[in-house]
Amino acid sequence: MAELIDSIAVMARVSEQLRGNGRRISLVPTMGALHEGHRALIARAREHSDAVVTSVFVNPTQFGKGEDFERYPRNLAGDIQKAGDAGSDYVFAPSSAALYPQQYRTYVEVEHLTGLLEGKIRPGHFRGVTTIVTKLFHIVMPHVAVFGQKDAQQVAVIRRMTQDLDFAVELVVIPTVREADGLARSSRNVYLTPGQRAEAPVLYRALRRAEQRIREGSTDAGAVREEMRVMIGQSSTAVVEYLSAAHGETLEELSALVTGTPVLLSLAVRFGSTRLIDNIPVVIP
Amino acid sequence: MAELIDSIAVMARVSEQLRGNGRRISLVPTMGALHEGHRALIARAREHSDAVVTSVFVNPTQFGKGEDFERYPRNLAGDIQKAGDAGSDYVFAPSSAALYPQQYRTYVEVEHLTGLLEGKIRPGHFRGVTTIVTKLFHIVMPHVAVFGQKDAQQVAVIRRMTQDLDFAVELVVIPTVREADGLARSSRNVYLTPGQRAEAPVLYRALRRAEQRIREGSTDAGAVREEMRVMIGQSSTAVVEYLSAAHGETLEELSALVTGTPVLLSLAVRFGSTRLIDNIPVVIP
Repeated sequence: MAELIDSIAVMARVSEQLRGNGRRISLVPTMGALHEGHRALIARAREHSDAVVTSVFVNPTQFGKGEDFERYPRNLAGDIQKAGDAGSDYVFAPSSAALYPQQYRTYVEVEHLTGLLEGKIRPGHFRGVTTIVTKLFHIVMPHVAVFGQKDAQQVAVIRRMTQDLDFAVELVVIPTVREADGLARSSRNVYLTPGQRAEAPVLYRALRRAEQRIREGSTDAGAVREEMRVMIGQSSTAVVEYLSAAHGETLEELSALVTGTPVLLSLAVRFGSTRLIDNIPVVIP
Repeated sequence: MAELIDSIAVMARVSEQLRGNGRRISLVPTMGALHEGHRALIARAREHSDAVVTSVFVNPTQFGKGEDFERYPRNLAGDIQKAGDAGSDYVFAPSSAALYPQQYRTYVEVEHLTGLLEGKIRPGHFRGVTTIVTKLFHIVMPHVAVFGQKDAQQVAVIRRMTQDLDFAVELVVIPTVREADGLARSSRNVYLTPGQRAEAPVLYRALRRAEQRIREGSTDAGAVREEMRVMIGQSSTAVVEYLSAAHGETLEELSALVTGTPVLLSLAVRFGSTRLIDNIPVVIP
């Protein structure tokens, strides 16, 4: 079982002591509702450090109006158990009132990258992410922070921020963990009805098909996107928000597919009121 | 003579080593052109720490279009000498290209406070300030940072940012250092013609008169502002940008002056193309 720390001051003191003793700290930032994907993040963090801190905080500033902040699954007791089982020493679960007091006014913003893909549909989302990650980096003072490829744009944005603001934190990114049928693990999967759950694996199948087309030598990004669209269109309940074949670093939508370019194939699709995202990174052969 | 460090990586390594050896680091962030005011900042930093780092960087992101970025006085050799004489161990003078590479995209913003007073006239100024201070905090990793009361709003904004983003940096603020006739020391004073220089002390006299009115029991902030306006109006060359009697923390303009309230009396006035600011903090008796 991991040790629970709910005070910012205590967390900072523990980290200060660990660093003073020459221990290497890694941070796994989560919103809780831990699943196999988080377990993989924590296991990787374990390899990189002497002390693993898993933060559990459903961050209000990264949710938009009408999004699922209120109903986002919360289970701190279960998370402490799972984080400990996976190898985390500490669970840092501060309160919203402590992180964002009444007079709170400061935000960290990455321009451009955050206006594309997820950012277009969820304005302000990444500002909330970069702000809370900055705060967690300052409190936990990790040497390493571990993120999942599942949130590919988040990784790109945090990588940009970490470089731009000269954070002395190494970022480690691990592959998306999937169910047996390919559905990406997500805390939001619990929202799916059995019918939606049965259809949801079409997202990964569409991404794999697109990846295959690129590996076969397709040079037309528009055709690749169209193929994903047709495939997902076969699901009766899926509503596409975006389907993208973008440059892997700038996240700008591609038209021609040129050898050597890193591509991020990504999508956001709704099943009823549940919004799922997924992606595959691929380098054009 | 202070040791010059112009590389971000070297500065970070030196700070890491100092911290590893249990040394206390203080940072004095400057734009160079060091004068008696900076000397006082460095001397105070010396008292608070084992290692003093004076940063010298004319930060382009805090200058607006048409402001004096290009002609801002620069004299690195002289600054290294003066910083050393004042007790600084290191002068950290990175290049703009290293701090803001081509693909740079990240900014730190404090809302509300930055839209008042200086922020109203210099949009984007404080975003540049909070961004560079964040970067310097990450690179130099100071335990203490020393700022001057001269830039009162900057102090308020950085204080807000430091609290909001959970920086483990103690802020120390020292009183404004003045010429014998009361003019606040500023790197921009060198721009003044002899005639303007002779008139410029009216700013401090007006602030002192306003302070006196408050100490005498005036309850009308508007009348206090008006008195400053009349007094500065006697100068033939002064052009007022703002005259303020604001709440010392929120920086909101006051109407009634209520016992116990902290007040920031402040102003920005142009003499020809030279813009000067000054202030006096006072608590209503």
